[in-house]
Amino acid sequence: MKTIETCFSPALYEPENNKGNIIVIIDILRATSSICTAFTNGAEAIIPVAEVEEAKSYKDRGWLVASERDGITLDFADFGNSPFNFTRERVEGKAIVYSTTNGTGLINLALLSEPSAIAIGSFLNISALVRWIERHEQNVTLFCAGWKKRFNLEDAIFAGAVAELLMQAGGYSTNCDSTLAAIDLWSIAKNDLKGYIEKVAHRSRLREKKLDDCIDFCLQHDFTTFVPILQNGRFIGSDGLK
Amino acid sequence: MKTIETCFSPALYEPENNKGNIIVIIDILRATSSICTAFTNGAEAIIPVAEVEEAKSYKDRGWLVASERDGITLDFADFGNSPFNFTRERVEGKAIVYSTTNGTGLINLALLSEPSAIAIGSFLNISALVRWIERHEQNVTLFCAGWKKRFNLEDAIFAGAVAELLMQAGGYSTNCDSTLAAIDLWSIAKNDLKGYIEKVAHRSRLREKKLDDCIDFCLQHDFTTFVPILQNGRFIGSDGLK
Repeated sequence: MKTIETCFSPALYEPENNKGNIIVIIDILRATSSICTAFTNGAEAIIPVAEVEEAKSYKDRGWLVASERDGITLDFADFGNSPFNFTRERVEGKAIVYSTTNGTGLINLALLSEPSAIAIGSFLNISALVRWIERHEQNVTLFCAGWKKRFNLEDAIFAGAVAELLMQAGGYSTNCDSTLAAIDLWSIAKNDLKGYIEKVAHRSRLREKKLDDCIDFCLQHDFTTFVPILQNGRFIGSDGLK
Repeated sequence: MKTIETCFSPALYEPENNKGNIIVIIDILRATSSICTAFTNGAEAIIPVAEVEEAKSYKDRGWLVASERDGITLDFADFGNSPFNFTRERVEGKAIVYSTTNGTGLINLALLSEPSAIAIGSFLNISALVRWIERHEQNVTLFCAGWKKRFNLEDAIFAGAVAELLMQAGGYSTNCDSTLAAIDLWSIAKNDLKGYIEKVAHRSRLREKKLDDCIDFCLQHDFTTFVPILQNGRFIGSDGLK
């Protein structure tokens, strides 16, 4: 029997407790949904970078760059971080530099655990992600980005959805309070996912910035079978069902 | 309308976000339940100390000392940290030094917020605590001790129970995802509180150490009307209903 750990925020991450695990990065509004969308639309790779300066230097060398801060696309960038930006005509066959301070921080923390793999999860690829995890038969860590290091509900319920699917299939169990809480929150949220997200603090933050147009899209299950996996510092898309 | 913030772990605490709030320290298995019990049984004050050496030096000067580490009462101490240790015959009329590394850490973090007050919460004093908070008409922070800096379920559901009572009365609202999650978890747990606690990780840790005999006691509502309040580095008991 393999185990499931859930971490609700990078501030809570303990590298030693997740040694050798498969680590799933979760930031469903909007980063991990956007990355799943990019691969669905034919992107060849996503290169996460931490600093705006680093993103800009890639741009100067001719790369396609997605970069925004506080919801505003940076002037040098090709587009921002909404999944709607990663259209087939823009991304097909291309490697994209994705500027994300938080995301890069999560990846660096996850690497301290010498993980079996680092994958990207969102509702858009949930079934493929679960199949992919099961096939690898490793302990799994569901690592929620949170918001400014705080707990957030949307990532927690997604972790609960993944944990429930893994446990239903019979190969996984948990003794982690965060996982148990996530499953319980998901059991409430799943009956009316859009309604549930309405009450979430990050939803109001996105609405204030008029960035909430993609929320219904991000809550779709199984828009894709791609599971983005980190290899040599860049994500590549692998089909989770194969 | 006053607001409710919930913090699930000292690792998530942001002093600036809780400036001037009433801060409720929550560690229901077992520290905050034990402190509520001590006042019910006539203790005059509880003096939290961080280091075992400090507790020992109090003992050498003739103080009554409660001190344990990993569930084992330290040899110099008068008793350990179970609520059952704080009997009337032992504690009535006395100030007790309570050795708690985690608890002292929480208090020091809370003090950085220059709080209106720091209070102790547990199911044992929940109604009196809520009345006392309402009477003070300040924003409130529900600060969960967690376990070794991790999220834990028992403190989260207690935070949810307090938040629900405050919001039902009409003077409090929240825009904090942790509070919303705590309320949802409580909505599941309250139908069968003992059954719910059965699945909690800390319950199994206490069971392994045979320290789980006090859990049913700690889940009792309104065993007391005392609300312990921090004043000049020590907790004193105040009647929450007066």
